[in-house]
Amino acid sequence: MAEKGLLLVLSGPSGVGKGTVKSAIVENKVFPFEYSVSMTTRKPRPGEVNGKDYYFVTQERFEQAINQGELLEYNQYVNNFYGTPLAPVKKMLNEGKDVLLEIDVNGAQKVREKMPDGVFIFLTPPDLHTLHLRLENRGTESEDVIMGRIKQARHEILVMQDYDYAVVNDTVANAVDHIKAIVDAEHVSVKRVIDTYRKMVRED
Amino acid sequence: MAEKGLLLVLSGPSGVGKGTVKSAIVENKVFPFEYSVSMTTRKPRPGEVNGKDYYFVTQERFEQAINQGELLEYNQYVNNFYGTPLAPVKKMLNEGKDVLLEIDVNGAQKVREKMPDGVFIFLTPPDLHTLHLRLENRGTESEDVIMGRIKQARHEILVMQDYDYAVVNDTVANAVDHIKAIVDAEHVSVKRVIDTYRKMVRED
Repeated sequence: MAEKGLLLVLSGPSGVGKGTVKSAIVENKVFPFEYSVSMTTRKPRPGEVNGKDYYFVTQERFEQAINQGELLEYNQYVNNFYGTPLAPVKKMLNEGKDVLLEIDVNGAQKVREKMPDGVFIFLTPPDLHTLHLRLENRGTESEDVIMGRIKQARHEILVMQDYDYAVVNDTVANAVDHIKAIVDAEHVSVKRVIDTYRKMVRED
Repeated sequence: MAEKGLLLVLSGPSGVGKGTVKSAIVENKVFPFEYSVSMTTRKPRPGEVNGKDYYFVTQERFEQAINQGELLEYNQYVNNFYGTPLAPVKKMLNEGKDVLLEIDVNGAQKVREKMPDGVFIFLTPPDLHTLHLRLENRGTESEDVIMGRIKQARHEILVMQDYDYAVVNDTVANAVDHIKAIVDAEHVSVKRVIDTYRKMVRED
């Protein structure tokens, strides 16, 4: 039965290891998914292929893509723009293929607005998960350090609450196992399969 | 961090193989969970231990349990009553233990009313999943047989829509794998872990 693919959005705080986890999923072929090729205004580096590594475009073309709603999300790093074209993502999902996006939390928020059916996975810093131990053992660390971490933790938890899953990146292997389970479980969730069953019994 | 356990409700149409799937989960120690010991009015069979196999009670005691809201769900088979005591289930969940209930669809509906936070897994007959193939290949089967299956399928889909997950029981191994993934994914779902994180950063 032809179900739509899953839009998997892997995000989390800066430095949490999103790229490493994504690479592990790719290298170990944990589950099949399609890449979304980003659009960027930065110049190609030697060996980079247009349409494979990125869609390399001019600033004008990028602004046009923004204005015409062609991008699922976009962001600026240094002086360059990076964005996710919407049309190929929708096409792959309609063909029943899962699509994995590894993006920062601002990008993930924009994707959520446009595609609320996506599966939003928040990669959680391991020290957020173990913060309670540090709180219980005050005295072994300076109060300033702990208070700083609590403040940051509050912000991370505020961001996390808009996600579907919170996966602790204690080890890459553990994080990958959890993400594999999430993908498997989402594929058998009633909200995703019920329409296919309903269509089936309507055709008589 | 102490999170509440998951209430896993495994159900599905009569004859779909709920008991076999549950036994496979138990025998292969797929994931740890607690048993809920049922209350019954039927007489103990040789070797059955009160409080382990069942809580064996009188008809009067069972009716009292119903009237005092002590049961999560109950049902009558032949002349005997069977029910799931609520208090031990709540205790185990509060201790962070997962509880697995394997019950019929009527029982599952009652559990959903009382404990909507449960994880409701509908075990799907494999021929519901492959019904579209039979519909595409009409002529190889009598129209009566197909129409009968479609009618039954409509009912199964109506029941399924109130569940969280639909797992096809094509092979026991596949069904068990999916259930394992569901348990793993639910344990990292934001709705289940966010309160623990929130509590953590409130204590300063």
